[in-house]
Amino acid sequence: MVDKEIKAIQDEYPEDFALCYGCGRLNKDGHKFRTGWLGEQTVTVYTPRPEHTAIPGFVYGGLIASLVDCHGTGSASLAMHRKNGYEPGDGVAPPRFVTASVHVDFYKPTPQHVALQAIGTIEEVHPKRWKIVTEVVANDTVYAKGEVVAVTMPDTFLT
Amino acid sequence: MVDKEIKAIQDEYPEDFALCYGCGRLNKDGHKFRTGWLGEQTVTVYTPRPEHTAIPGFVYGGLIASLVDCHGTGSASLAMHRKNGYEPGDGVAPPRFVTASVHVDFYKPTPQHVALQAIGTIEEVHPKRWKIVTEVVANDTVYAKGEVVAVTMPDTFLT
Repeated sequence: MVDKEIKAIQDEYPEDFALCYGCGRLNKDGHKFRTGWLGEQTVTVYTPRPEHTAIPGFVYGGLIASLVDCHGTGSASLAMHRKNGYEPGDGVAPPRFVTASVHVDFYKPTPQHVALQAIGTIEEVHPKRWKIVTEVVANDTVYAKGEVVAVTMPDTFLT
Repeated sequence: MVDKEIKAIQDEYPEDFALCYGCGRLNKDGHKFRTGWLGEQTVTVYTPRPEHTAIPGFVYGGLIASLVDCHGTGSASLAMHRKNGYEPGDGVAPPRFVTASVHVDFYKPTPQHVALQAIGTIEEVHPKRWKIVTEVVANDTVYAKGEVVAVTMPDTFLT
């Protein structure tokens, strides 16, 4: 699985919601994480930039947390969109989520200069509240495990 | 408290450990988080860059998680250094920590274009394992609460 093969939920967000530094396709400085289905799981593929260093050769933890976070909200959006009968590419604006909490356990230092895969397993906790458990994988090794609780963006978010 | 007033633990790290995208003083592209004492608590002050957007006007969660993460390891280093009898500026290399886990609860959207203060409370769990509870504050309002478990960097970290 490479990034360009993913039919990403972020490609469907309205322009006002496409500016996230993590996953906004219109944020020119950001990571542009793209999240799609991988069977019943979800996937985001990203190769950290050379400057995303912890110590030379390893990825800094904030990048992993950011990947887990945006992968989580994107996965929740994919799941609720599918529950509503839609897939990315159907031309229907998907529901947007915000992060209530993010947790990451770092198992070992994550190597740089390789593609990371965030692989998510989704559980509906409540119609407006979803939990996504994510493994961060490189070269078939799990380097970190994350959990996001995502909630549908409240109507009052911008007021 | 403004950033330049902080006597930061990161200023004391050897050059090989000063390249972190979050808190390395020698990473020219990174955040350069700087963490110092604030009485018995710790503080990191940072104003996110304009591109660190979630949606316009609000900071993306990955930046908050990165701030909580590096503030946590820096706080653990400060605490163990003080326990050993030293303060930043004493000219003694401090202990370095890595993150075992990071957790963030987002209470409400964090506003952009203002300085954020990460305020940490430190608990020694074990001589090599510390827990840091951090509030992320802007304009006297707590927008997020984080927890980091930090462990002393193992000798095998680079092997």
